[in-house]
Amino acid sequence: MSDRERARRPGGRSARVAAEVHQAVTDLISERGYGNFTVGEVAARAGVADSSIYRRWGNLEALLTDVALTRLNTRSPMPDTGSLDGDLRTYAAQVAREITGPDGPAVLHLAVALSSSGKQGLKAGYDLRAERTRQLQSMLDRARERGEPAPDALDVLDHVLAPMYIRVLFGMGPLTPEYVDGLVDRLL
Amino acid sequence: MSDRERARRPGGRSARVAAEVHQAVTDLISERGYGNFTVGEVAARAGVADSSIYRRWGNLEALLTDVALTRLNTRSPMPDTGSLDGDLRTYAAQVAREITGPDGPAVLHLAVALSSSGKQGLKAGYDLRAERTRQLQSMLDRARERGEPAPDALDVLDHVLAPMYIRVLFGMGPLTPEYVDGLVDRLL
Repeated sequence: MSDRERARRPGGRSARVAAEVHQAVTDLISERGYGNFTVGEVAARAGVADSSIYRRWGNLEALLTDVALTRLNTRSPMPDTGSLDGDLRTYAAQVAREITGPDGPAVLHLAVALSSSGKQGLKAGYDLRAERTRQLQSMLDRARERGEPAPDALDVLDHVLAPMYIRVLFGMGPLTPEYVDGLVDRLL
Repeated sequence: MSDRERARRPGGRSARVAAEVHQAVTDLISERGYGNFTVGEVAARAGVADSSIYRRWGNLEALLTDVALTRLNTRSPMPDTGSLDGDLRTYAAQVAREITGPDGPAVLHLAVALSSSGKQGLKAGYDLRAERTRQLQSMLDRARERGEPAPDALDVLDHVLAPMYIRVLFGMGPLTPEYVDGLVDRLL
């Protein structure tokens, strides 16, 4: 194994640097808002040289896209509780927890930014949503196979996810369990 | 009238410069995404000196907040068609037109950014939403006074505005009249 390979193996120095740089980006978005920091500030926060960031990611935009894709790809698996009611409630509560957690609003801002940062970001955002919609669709298909009436995946987006996303993006207070359950009740 | 006063009067040179700088910001957000440009690039696009921007706005963040507030404050008045059904359909179609128009996605991104750019932006975003909610509330109150059953203003946000906002923010294709009317049908 060469030094280069060793540096790139999972859990090695390279992975640690990537994790620290990603966390620095998420922290800076939480503290200052998206778009209000430079590569130099990310490097200082992560304790690495600016040149390490430029060598690995090329520029701030590419780094932000990488953080967005990494964070959005590591969300929790879809629930399978045996009933659509249980699945949707568990799923909605899980999303609410994710987007109101310490890094949640920053990750949501990254998702929005991804879709406005040129063709590559738009494609990446599209692929991510296609994958999440496919998972949501399997959950709804399982319900239909059990004979339960189920809404469309896009109705779940419009009437359960979108209201929660917008309230977090606009900084409109916490998502209480009653509010989240109310969105599911209304959809079902 | 001093030169300084003349420069600041509405419609004068100062107002023209502000309009050009605001449009340059909106164009750059549309083309590159929020956060992917500098004061120098805004100045070059608007045909003014960097120093004019720093003198007037101080920094990029303050300029972006000013653009967001100006654009979000100049939206169309609330409709008053005589029925809640007509009011809500007209209002939803109007919002759909605004957010999918040439500058619409850029203005939505500014609104989101406003709420993540520190206390001042959060307060400004809160005030803006309070004013829009008040206008929406009058529309719903008029309906109740006519004896029509009316939803809460927050239900209109959650189930008519939020789905449209999220679809535009995520770059998910056009908002067809059928889709927008469907959101209102579902709410009523």
